[in-house]
Amino acid sequence: MELWRDKIRKTEPYIPGEQPEGRNIIKLNTNECPYPPSPMTERVIREYSCGDLRLYPSILCRGLKSALADTYSVEENEIFLGNGSDEVLALCFMTFFNSDKAVLFPDITYSFYDVWCQLYGIPFKRIPLDDSFRIVKEDYFGENGGVVIANPNAPTGIYMGLESIEEIVSANRDSIVIIDEAYIDFGGISAAELIHKYDNIVVVQTFSKSRALAGIRVGYAMADKRLIDALEAVKNSFNSYTLNSLSQIVAEAAARDTQYFRKCCENIISTREWTIAELERLGFDTLPSSANFIFTTNKNIDAKALFEYLREQNIIVRYFNKPRIEQYLRITIGTKEQMEALTAAIRRY
Amino acid sequence: MELWRDKIRKTEPYIPGEQPEGRNIIKLNTNECPYPPSPMTERVIREYSCGDLRLYPSILCRGLKSALADTYSVEENEIFLGNGSDEVLALCFMTFFNSDKAVLFPDITYSFYDVWCQLYGIPFKRIPLDDSFRIVKEDYFGENGGVVIANPNAPTGIYMGLESIEEIVSANRDSIVIIDEAYIDFGGISAAELIHKYDNIVVVQTFSKSRALAGIRVGYAMADKRLIDALEAVKNSFNSYTLNSLSQIVAEAAARDTQYFRKCCENIISTREWTIAELERLGFDTLPSSANFIFTTNKNIDAKALFEYLREQNIIVRYFNKPRIEQYLRITIGTKEQMEALTAAIRRY
Repeated sequence: MELWRDKIRKTEPYIPGEQPEGRNIIKLNTNECPYPPSPMTERVIREYSCGDLRLYPSILCRGLKSALADTYSVEENEIFLGNGSDEVLALCFMTFFNSDKAVLFPDITYSFYDVWCQLYGIPFKRIPLDDSFRIVKEDYFGENGGVVIANPNAPTGIYMGLESIEEIVSANRDSIVIIDEAYIDFGGISAAELIHKYDNIVVVQTFSKSRALAGIRVGYAMADKRLIDALEAVKNSFNSYTLNSLSQIVAEAAARDTQYFRKCCENIISTREWTIAELERLGFDTLPSSANFIFTTNKNIDAKALFEYLREQNIIVRYFNKPRIEQYLRITIGTKEQMEALTAAIRRY
Repeated sequence: MELWRDKIRKTEPYIPGEQPEGRNIIKLNTNECPYPPSPMTERVIREYSCGDLRLYPSILCRGLKSALADTYSVEENEIFLGNGSDEVLALCFMTFFNSDKAVLFPDITYSFYDVWCQLYGIPFKRIPLDDSFRIVKEDYFGENGGVVIANPNAPTGIYMGLESIEEIVSANRDSIVIIDEAYIDFGGISAAELIHKYDNIVVVQTFSKSRALAGIRVGYAMADKRLIDALEAVKNSFNSYTLNSLSQIVAEAAARDTQYFRKCCENIISTREWTIAELERLGFDTLPSSANFIFTTNKNIDAKALFEYLREQNIIVRYFNKPRIEQYLRITIGTKEQMEALTAAIRRY
C-alpha cells in the first residue's frame, strides 16, 4: 500500500482560523468587515445575465481594472488582478524573488510570507521588529533579494508613514519591494502614488477588508507596467482564468461606490478608537492601530486564559502562541454593539 | 533602469484563445457549452443573501462537496475543489509528481501539462499517439514518475475505454495516475468508480463544459482520501480560500440538477453526430469524438486557409500550428443552428 508515497509532496497540514457556523457568535478573529458590502453589489448580482456563466470569464477584466484605475489614478495596464490577495502575493513572490539573495521581512508579520518562500525555494531572513513592535526602516537598506512590508503591519496594526516607505523603496532600486496594504484604508496613506516614481515597488491590496467582500476573493497589485507584464506572463503560463465572472462585476460595483466605502471605513475607525479607550480603562495596553483590528495586552491578565474565556462567551478573537506576542490578543473591530459586548464580557472577567 | 531585472522570473507571454466581444460571432473555439447553465443556478444567485459576502467563504465547501459526493457515489473527503480544473491539475502536478523520474503524457494532448512540469521542475516525457491519434496503453506501463491521461483526449476527442484506463492504473501502483475528464460527460464512462479500488488514481473534472459554467471557475478531483488530504495540505499551505462563496452555491445548484445536465449533454451529442455526418458529405474525415468538440480534416482543403475563411465569416474555430495536426481544425459543438451556419459556410467555401 501507498507505494506512491515517496513521489508525493509532504506538507504540514495548515489549521485554518475558526469559521464557526452559528449565527449567535461574535466573530472578531479574521478581520472581516462587520458591515455588508455596498448595496451596488447586490444590484449587479440581481441583474446579472446568468446565462453568460456558460462562457469563460474575460481575461482582460477591463471593467474592474478601469474602476481601480479611476480610484487610484493609475493606468489599467499598471494593475494585476488575482483570486484574493493571497494569490496575488504568492504570484509576486514567484515572479519577483528569483535570486540567491535573501528576501527580507519582519519577524512578526503576515504568516504566509515565509510559507511562500519555502514553497518556491526563496531564501529569506526575518528582521526583528524593535521593542515597541515597530519596523526599523534602516534594517531594509542592505543587500537583499527583495523586501516585503505589510503596512499597516499585522498583527500589530502599526502603520509606517509614506516617507519611510519611500526611503525603503529608494534604497532598493535593484530589488522589488512589495508593500502589502490589506489594511491601508483604516488610517494610512497608500503607496500607490509611488508606482509612477519608482519601477521597483509593488503595492498589493484586497477587497476582503475595507470593501467588505472577503467572500468574492479578489485582490490586486499596482506597479510599473513592466512588473505587471511579468506577473501576467507568469500567471497566464499556468492558469489563465483565475477571476470568475461574478467576482469581477461585484468587485467593480464596490470599487465604484466610493461614498459607501468611506462611510464604512470611518465607522470602523471610530469604533476602533472607542474600543481602545474602553480597554485602556480596563488596564489594557493597545498598540497604535491603523487597521480594522487592534493588538492588545494586559499585564494583569493572561492572554490565553482571556482568549479561552471569551470563547466560552461566544466571542472569538485571535490568539497567537508565538514568541514575543504570546501575551497579546488580536481583536477585529466589529460593530459598536459587538465591541460593547466584548468590553462587557472582559469587565465580567 | 530595470536594475531589478535579473531577480525576476522571465516567462514567454502566453497568447490566450480569442474571446471576441461581439454578439454576432459564432464562437466554436473554446469548448464552452452553447446552452445556459441549469435554471437552478439563476435561482440561487437571485436568492443569495449578498450581505454574507463580507465573510470569508467556507473552506470546507460542505454543500458543494455533498452534491458531488451524491452524484459520483463517493465520500466528501474523497473530493478536492479548486478555482477551475486548471488550478486543480496544477496542484495535482505539484503534489503528486515529486520524484526524479519522468512523468508521462501523450505528445498530442492538453497543452498545459508540459507547462506545469516546466514550472515545477518536473521531468516529463511526451509519448507519441499512434498513427490514428490513439493512446497506446502499453506505452504507460514502464517506470515513470506519474502518468497523465486526458480522457477523452484533447484536441482529438478520442475516448479510451474504462478497462484500458484500469490497466494503466493497475500497472502503476507506485505512481499516481491522473485522469483528466474535462470532456467525459459527452459519451464516456468516468473512472471515478476506480478510486475505491485503487489508491493511485486521481480523477479530475470541471464545471466549465457539461455543466455550462466556465464563468464560475470550479474544478474538482476525486481520489483516495489520503491523496485528497495531501492535496488539501499543499493548497492550504499557501492559499486557503480559493473558492469564492458565489461559485460554491452556483456549482452546487448545477450539480444537483441532474435532469437538465443530462438533457444538455444529449443535445450536444446529437448535434455532434449530425455535424460529423454533414462534414463527411463535404469530404471531411473526423476523428471519432466523445467530447463536445470534433477534430476534423479534409484532404482537399488547407486547414489554415479554411480557419481564416471562417474567421472572416464570423465563425471562430481552433487551429493548432503544430506538427502532425496542422491539417486539422478543432470545432466546438454549438447549437444546431450554429452548426448549420458552419456547414453552410464551408459549403460556400
